[in-house]
Amino acid sequence: MLELKTHHFTNDELLTHVERALEHTIANRPLAQKLKEAINYALLGGGKRVRPMLCLHCCAAARGDIQHAMPAAVAIEMIHAFSLVHDDLPALDNDDLRRGRATTHVAFGEALAILAGDALLSIAMEQALSCKIGSAHIAHELATSTTEMISGQVLDTLGGFPKDFNPAQQLELIHRQKTGALIRAACRMGAYAADANADTLDRLTRWGETMGLMFQVVDDILDETQSSEHLGKSAGKDAAQGKMTYPKIHGIAWSREHVKELLDHSEQLLKPLGEPAQPLRDMAQLLTTRTK
Amino acid sequence: MLELKTHHFTNDELLTHVERALEHTIANRPLAQKLKEAINYALLGGGKRVRPMLCLHCCAAARGDIQHAMPAAVAIEMIHAFSLVHDDLPALDNDDLRRGRATTHVAFGEALAILAGDALLSIAMEQALSCKIGSAHIAHELATSTTEMISGQVLDTLGGFPKDFNPAQQLELIHRQKTGALIRAACRMGAYAADANADTLDRLTRWGETMGLMFQVVDDILDETQSSEHLGKSAGKDAAQGKMTYPKIHGIAWSREHVKELLDHSEQLLKPLGEPAQPLRDMAQLLTTRTK
Repeated sequence: MLELKTHHFTNDELLTHVERALEHTIANRPLAQKLKEAINYALLGGGKRVRPMLCLHCCAAARGDIQHAMPAAVAIEMIHAFSLVHDDLPALDNDDLRRGRATTHVAFGEALAILAGDALLSIAMEQALSCKIGSAHIAHELATSTTEMISGQVLDTLGGFPKDFNPAQQLELIHRQKTGALIRAACRMGAYAADANADTLDRLTRWGETMGLMFQVVDDILDETQSSEHLGKSAGKDAAQGKMTYPKIHGIAWSREHVKELLDHSEQLLKPLGEPAQPLRDMAQLLTTRTK
Repeated sequence: MLELKTHHFTNDELLTHVERALEHTIANRPLAQKLKEAINYALLGGGKRVRPMLCLHCCAAARGDIQHAMPAAVAIEMIHAFSLVHDDLPALDNDDLRRGRATTHVAFGEALAILAGDALLSIAMEQALSCKIGSAHIAHELATSTTEMISGQVLDTLGGFPKDFNPAQQLELIHRQKTGALIRAACRMGAYAADANADTLDRLTRWGETMGLMFQVVDDILDETQSSEHLGKSAGKDAAQGKMTYPKIHGIAWSREHVKELLDHSEQLLKPLGEPAQPLRDMAQLLTTRTK
């Protein structure tokens, strides 16, 4: 068992703990060997671990013990990994490359990629249920946000919006569901693991929504402006496919201004939480300046 | 809310309640319309509802209120439906026909079939968590058995057995995981919803394992002996694909004899549970004489 206490970690140390927890989750399970290999490839192949870090830092901001949020942090990253594996499949986004590596179906075949994604989802639920504090809330949050994310992926891939939705509304709905739901859930799961009171839970929920939106706007801006060398996948691909993005609908200048507004809003929400919320302020700042 | 009390239902009435509960589960959710349609197609397209009926009858056999097991019954059928949708995909079993109808990916396309399967899995977890009694145990049971089933599907589709396993051992491992895990879980979830004591839980667990094995042996016998008209899919397909079956490894006569032994064992396990276990006895009997 990891020994973690709140407030005593650098970001890098915490990231190392998350990586170890992710490795540990699969290593000792009685799974078919090929399934383990495909899951590990999908789960341990890098990534910034934004969602688990949000989860852990929200737990700390709610004055909880980070250790209690670790299974939730692992669970939310597994859901993220599941969604990437399935979204990359030929029938969906048909991506060969992710983070500069072959996608899971390219490396392991389509059958195993489908099943590895499925297993990531169900093992994530096992993980969420293993939390010592708030496991029922945490598991429920994980399941509902996963369903919402999948529904958002259907809208993004296949359309089918309510008829009176204009493009800006369609964009907002897709992102709230597809990206936002899981980021919001990461924050709420952290709060539940801290047994947060209603005000703190509500505050971290709204902060999570703000981060989800900011994450997406920044993502869209990066997609529009960075070269494919930086992105590890084809830049401008969303635009080339005719997908809606914030810069496309609202312009780059508006999008950049919007990120600043969201950052201000984040600060207002975190103010009453004081010093333990400092890592969240740092993360918000980092998200605005990140590369992919 | 359904008003259900134990012991007062014919099998047909209970089946009707299960069907309504399945319809109700999707109808009121805020999901993308296309996703709803694909899920409903996969979930409401017939089937004998063996797993939900096992779950409800096990709840009653443990002297619980069937009403409390209904969300668990719905959840286990959703997991079953998810597994069929994904197993039928071109990259896996590549089946065009199921229960005499086009499979989900043929009717809705591969992208939507993948996502509908994913959503069935996550909504099933939501359902399990909504049980009023034993929800933590029920959700954990659902998640672990789903993971086990997926691992079994990997072995069945892609192989990768421990090196010292002979064909009979390979067959047993596949079936215990691929079919058995979910049937066992259905029984245990029903017991948890009844807040069963340790002896009853253990008894219904072993009974579920016995049923899972019997279900598979009968399935293999049917596959070997029935025409495709009865099966709604190509008969003898497993044999044609070189898949291991009980009749293939042990012979038809041995397989039929084994079914009788399992039925005897079932009766011994249920004896102490008395009259409330009568529907389980009837189900065991029915499973031995079923068609597909």
